[in-house]
Amino acid sequence: MGANTIGCEFALTTFGESHGVAIGGIIDGCPSNLTVDMAFIDSELQRRKTQNEFGTARIEQDKVVFFSGLEQNITLGTPIGFMIENKDIRPEDYQDLEHFRSNHADYTYLKKYGIKPLSGGGRASARETAARVVGGSIAKLFLQRFDIRIEAKIEAIGGINYLQNREEAERLLQAVKQAGDSIGGKIVCRIENCPSGLGEPVFDKFSALLAQAMISIPSAMSFEIGGGLSTAVRGSESMAGGLQGGISNGQSITFSVGFKPISSYNCKGRHDVCQLFRATVIVESMAALVTADLMKRNYNLGKI
Amino acid sequence: MGANTIGCEFALTTFGESHGVAIGGIIDGCPSNLTVDMAFIDSELQRRKTQNEFGTARIEQDKVVFFSGLEQNITLGTPIGFMIENKDIRPEDYQDLEHFRSNHADYTYLKKYGIKPLSGGGRASARETAARVVGGSIAKLFLQRFDIRIEAKIEAIGGINYLQNREEAERLLQAVKQAGDSIGGKIVCRIENCPSGLGEPVFDKFSALLAQAMISIPSAMSFEIGGGLSTAVRGSESMAGGLQGGISNGQSITFSVGFKPISSYNCKGRHDVCQLFRATVIVESMAALVTADLMKRNYNLGKI
Amino acid sequence: MGANTIGCEFALTTFGESHGVAIGGIIDGCPSNLTVDMAFIDSELQRRKTQNEFGTARIEQDKVVFFSGLEQNITLGTPIGFMIENKDIRPEDYQDLEHFRSNHADYTYLKKYGIKPLSGGGRASARETAARVVGGSIAKLFLQRFDIRIEAKIEAIGGINYLQNREEAERLLQAVKQAGDSIGGKIVCRIENCPSGLGEPVFDKFSALLAQAMISIPSAMSFEIGGGLSTAVRGSESMAGGLQGGISNGQSITFSVGFKPISSYNCKGRHDVCQLFRATVIVESMAALVTADLMKRNYNLGKI
Amino acid sequence: MGANTIGCEFALTTFGESHGVAIGGIIDGCPSNLTVDMAFIDSELQRRKTQNEFGTARIEQDKVVFFSGLEQNITLGTPIGFMIENKDIRPEDYQDLEHFRSNHADYTYLKKYGIKPLSGGGRASARETAARVVGGSIAKLFLQRFDIRIEAKIEAIGGINYLQNREEAERLLQAVKQAGDSIGGKIVCRIENCPSGLGEPVFDKFSALLAQAMISIPSAMSFEIGGGLSTAVRGSESMAGGLQGGISNGQSITFSVGFKPISSYNCKGRHDVCQLFRATVIVESMAALVTADLMKRNYNLGKI
Repeated sequence: MGANTIGCEFALTTFGESHGVAIGGIIDGCPSNLTVDMAFIDSELQRRKTQNEFGTARIEQDKVVFFSGLEQNITLGTPIGFMIENKDIRPEDYQDLEHFRSNHADYTYLKKYGIKPLSGGGRASARETAARVVGGSIAKLFLQRFDIRIEAKIEAIGGINYLQNREEAERLLQAVKQAGDSIGGKIVCRIENCPSGLGEPVFDKFSALLAQAMISIPSAMSFEIGGGLSTAVRGSESMAGGLQGGISNGQSITFSVGFKPISSYNCKGRHDVCQLFRATVIVESMAALVTADLMKRNYNLGKI
Repeated sequence: MGANTIGCEFALTTFGESHGVAIGGIIDGCPSNLTVDMAFIDSELQRRKTQNEFGTARIEQDKVVFFSGLEQNITLGTPIGFMIENKDIRPEDYQDLEHFRSNHADYTYLKKYGIKPLSGGGRASARETAARVVGGSIAKLFLQRFDIRIEAKIEAIGGINYLQNREEAERLLQAVKQAGDSIGGKIVCRIENCPSGLGEPVFDKFSALLAQAMISIPSAMSFEIGGGLSTAVRGSESMAGGLQGGISNGQSITFSVGFKPISSYNCKGRHDVCQLFRATVIVESMAALVTADLMKRNYNLGKI
Repeated sequence: MGANTIGCEFALTTFGESHGVAIGGIIDGCPSNLTVDMAFIDSELQRRKTQNEFGTARIEQDKVVFFSGLEQNITLGTPIGFMIENKDIRPEDYQDLEHFRSNHADYTYLKKYGIKPLSGGGRASARETAARVVGGSIAKLFLQRFDIRIEAKIEAIGGINYLQNREEAERLLQAVKQAGDSIGGKIVCRIENCPSGLGEPVFDKFSALLAQAMISIPSAMSFEIGGGLSTAVRGSESMAGGLQGGISNGQSITFSVGFKPISSYNCKGRHDVCQLFRATVIVESMAALVTADLMKRNYNLGKI
Repeated sequence: MGANTIGCEFALTTFGESHGVAIGGIIDGCPSNLTVDMAFIDSELQRRKTQNEFGTARIEQDKVVFFSGLEQNITLGTPIGFMIENKDIRPEDYQDLEHFRSNHADYTYLKKYGIKPLSGGGRASARETAARVVGGSIAKLFLQRFDIRIEAKIEAIGGINYLQNREEAERLLQAVKQAGDSIGGKIVCRIENCPSGLGEPVFDKFSALLAQAMISIPSAMSFEIGGGLSTAVRGSESMAGGLQGGISNGQSITFSVGFKPISSYNCKGRHDVCQLFRATVIVESMAALVTADLMKRNYNLGKI
């Protein structure tokens, strides 16, 4: 399978360098007769952009153009090709960085491909995630038909619980911003009303596919299924949650994703103090893609 | 792709119910001319069995039989079929459990497949991991040719650091055992001497594939790349580690895996107080399978 | 995907050298609750063996052993592992062939894998097709639930229509046998009662997947969809058949497969004068595997 | 795997309805540092368009736009996204066809997807093949690095050998044109200078993958490997050709593809009298995609 594809029966393949002409992708396997709400897709893409003072001032328009697979906003069952132009390209921001930026992927891309693009980090960029959001928003619309809902929230910034200590967390953000530094944190996500039976035994467990999808997000460093702290409790206290043997049981599925701070602080390149505000929609999108794929894999005559 | 397969170019497909006739698998894509050290495979399988008083007294012989792909212990390049008989089957241990065991996968398997086997938890069992160890040990022998080494250790039992407080951890294990309960913990694993350039951009990042492989292990609940605590530090303190943009850079790669306690404590069925002693070789095996697959995917004319 | 796998949702992976310990495979994706008629599988395997004086006197018992995926002959939905021992191994027949047998795959296997097994042609052997027949017979039992029937017949031997000139064809076979030579021919196969909508647009057309499956059979050289001679007629005479745009329309699907003569005539190794008598069940098996896979791919929420 | 993808390590995924906004695709797995000759791609696309009086007067500009994977016409190793606008859309040609056109895929698409697009035959159209030619031309440039050459020629039109009786064939074409009818024929293709060892045993034989690729072309009905007539000769006369056991041996590989006449003659929609003049470049493109994929799959440490 191509390395830039995720999913088997509801599959997203993406393309695009962060500072090239455009990014985009193909959604293959979306069922026909689904109404695609374009305003919803735009609002999801909007969520991925800067929302507050702790993100960089991007003027990306992120206007998605659909080439195929739709007629009058109804899916045809055929592959959905789409593209988002990169309007706010400023490669000059990157060209005067004489050494590889700390922690960035330029070094490994050079080692892997033997070529160093003039522009920035190639595929290893937050820009690439816009294509994930387009795929994820179509997946969400598909899942809505079954009343499956997915919601992600910021759980912690740095070491501070954001839900319970929001003011303290914002003081931390201000301090980090003034220091020209960056900070990571944790996002928690919940999949609700998922039918039982999703996930495949052994390697393609629902939990395992969620882990791959989440850790594939730029800067994601950790993944945890269930309510956290589960490794410290005893068996008698351990709760079931929505998965047993990696397969959904009909209850809510909760997982969390930890993000490291953006690595290229203090560069002329524009980077976030804290990317978590932008990342909730990406986490939801990846969860929606995994869930949609498993819905299609499960409902295919799993039993007769 | 079949749901019971992991890997693209170095692929393992497994079969087998925990209390059926046999388990086994097919390793497809192992290069030819590799000498298979049978004593090494046996010793790896031995590591997966009970090693101390905190595991159940299994008398599984775990003797692997190879059907194909080898001639005089040299690989032919063709698929390696193998089987391990289930000699120590005691389904009577399981048949008098009138209700589904707490947290076990029987319920979700029933929902997914509409059938309830007489024997225990089907594919969702520690037994299935023996096939992973066979695949992983062949992968390790392949990686040895490139001096790539993989080693996993217990990092924590319950909340106690096992490396620094081993006596305290063992007191905890004794207490848990006497209470008829079980306890989880954390395993840390290191991949050393990995060449740069392994991992594919976007969805098949080295880190993302490791995450899937680890969370696919029974009872694994969390995965973390790098040295831990990375979400709490600031960008200026964040260290590179062996991966950038999800691609190896030639340095050591470290990750950890958290396990919940074995869920079916206090059953007549035989279960561990703490499965971590058996799990290190499983973590290593899954890491070896992922690394071997990426070695083959990367060295296929990634550059010309 | 592993190179020895066919199918996505109903997948067969096989292993085994022709003169090794055993051959076998894993069927992944067979739905649960299907009753497996063991006598039927045995009879299918029997069809693959010598049936008349124009095949070699094989004493292969071809007794299949199932390791998993079944309980009391009912499928569990989990992978079905199976094995057939190679009881009639006579590698001494092959060891004194000092040069590569004309047309056989030993040369290409040596070039590909850099190793020359002591035994015969490795995976490139009629022996390997027994695993296809096991997979195909399970696929047929699955398709029977939908009243889909698949039947193959010998259409021609050499250039002679076998259905209309059977006596002439048998005179040809006798002449070829006395000359110590071998002869090929053509098999025609019909899939009946196939529902409409099977096959995927563009690359995974029903016809295209049948073509791959058929040409993958040892000695198969040509594939033709529909009633034959279709390239010579005009558009106004061209008939629809059971496929439009590569997708089934509910009518019968007919195709034919041409086989070259067995290449290693006149060797001490045991070979057929004409392999077509054994090949009908292999053609049916491959057609059943393709159809079962497309059934599962199509019935997975193709439309909502 | 998505249904609209061909290839594992050098993979093409396509999108686009024949009368929608655009068609296009993603080439995933093309190595870096390859110079992409844009004039060559244009000339390949030109070959796919009408070349003589026996094709319809298309004014498609078929100008390909590349979005990613290239910088100054050098490949980066990342996915190559591309698009061709459908400039010559005339859906009014199709809207007054009150009944399904004979043999066309509208019926099966309706059955499969439960939706009837306003425009013509959806994905089942010659238009879709432009994306194959873009993918194939990049594959050809990759193969040129190894001096692998692929060339296809018209072998027969109707029942007439085009190479030896060109005048007779052209008289036939004129007669068919005047009758408002259409005619098929046969294309022969040769792959030269292919290294030995390409192709995978059993299901992914070079020949089997070529068969799938060729039969996936619209109107392709038959595939034959080797020099033809091979089923009628005896084993003692059968020649090796470039494949043994489905794996290349270093000699030229020859195969032929039979096409039925275009089915929708006599419609207002614009269709060819004989599509073979346009089809040679499509046959070459599909052969190049298969060969490039097998090159990458084979050179990935097949032996160590």
